[in-house]
Amino acid sequence: MKLYDLEVSGNCYKVRLFAALAQIELQLVPVDFSRNEHKSAAICSLNPWGQVPILQDDNLVLRDAQAILVYLAGRYGGEAWWPGEAHLQGQVMQWLSVAASEIQHGPNAARLVKKFGAQLDMQQAQARSEHILGLMDKHLAEQSWLAVGRPTIADCAVFPYVVLAWEGEVDISPYQHIQAWITRIKALPGFIGMPGVR
Amino acid sequence: MKLYDLEVSGNCYKVRLFAALAQIELQLVPVDFSRNEHKSAAICSLNPWGQVPILQDDNLVLRDAQAILVYLAGRYGGEAWWPGEAHLQGQVMQWLSVAASEIQHGPNAARLVKKFGAQLDMQQAQARSEHILGLMDKHLAEQSWLAVGRPTIADCAVFPYVVLAWEGEVDISPYQHIQAWITRIKALPGFIGMPGVR
Repeated sequence: MKLYDLEVSGNCYKVRLFAALAQIELQLVPVDFSRNEHKSAAICSLNPWGQVPILQDDNLVLRDAQAILVYLAGRYGGEAWWPGEAHLQGQVMQWLSVAASEIQHGPNAARLVKKFGAQLDMQQAQARSEHILGLMDKHLAEQSWLAVGRPTIADCAVFPYVVLAWEGEVDISPYQHIQAWITRIKALPGFIGMPGVR
Repeated sequence: MKLYDLEVSGNCYKVRLFAALAQIELQLVPVDFSRNEHKSAAICSLNPWGQVPILQDDNLVLRDAQAILVYLAGRYGGEAWWPGEAHLQGQVMQWLSVAASEIQHGPNAARLVKKFGAQLDMQQAQARSEHILGLMDKHLAEQSWLAVGRPTIADCAVFPYVVLAWEGEVDISPYQHIQAWITRIKALPGFIGMPGVR
């Protein structure tokens, strides 16, 4: 099973982190962004979005980190990470949407500006970051994990751009419950970091 | 089962549309945005985000349209709308992320600016809209539905802000495969519209 991967991408890290925690073996295929390889015909034939991560498992090709997490957990990770019951899936799914929306356009956008020089509205990215981090902190004041009382793919999807937020000059030090959650995630058996995860 | 609802919200319409197609009965509870009711203590106690839709089914409370779709389909809609197999879930999930990210920050953002006067970057919303609509159109050139060869919650999640794009002055007339897909969705048994769906 191949993961087309970029080491500094938080979206790729979502998948690498989950695979490490769930002991799923991935063959990493590095994609060279400095040479624009993600926009090459070969990559775009797998993912017309021209983005990584891309997962290839036999004939199945999936783009989007959240979709890859749902597949990997459902196929190889077991009920613990992505429960089968509808009311539990719904609760996990709330946070997959947060990862795809508020986190993507908040702390991730701020990091794209500050670390990679992206032309995005930094003020808006900062404001969105503060908004979602505040909501998360309140949520984590009352529970240890984002959903269903245990570590799930929800935590794997949200963790990367929160722990990397400092690279976008988003300060997470005021959020003590987020800090404690980060510590809990780092203590999970099999945890791996990436460049920028302190 | 209660849906806290705003008639002009495309996110609420995702849920109303799916419930109509899958013949799931919802009790609509209108939330009065003109009186800021979505920021009231009552609503925020259900959803700290202060947003609708919110679904309440006995003790379960869910926010986020995509999460509500996953729950409703998994619990009441049957395999057709949200398949149980991991590789099919992954394919549907790709489009739930598109709904939460590219559509939310593309055509939806443009509509928020033009219809409701939101302070968002219109140029960026337009550029994002063109990008995602172009990708969707190519995808729909080769298949009738967004995922797994049949109508699923993916179509219900993406349809509203695409068909309402004109309200954000995003022109979808150049995208003939999207047009044909809209026609197919409107022909589904049980289909319902909302204000602005032409």
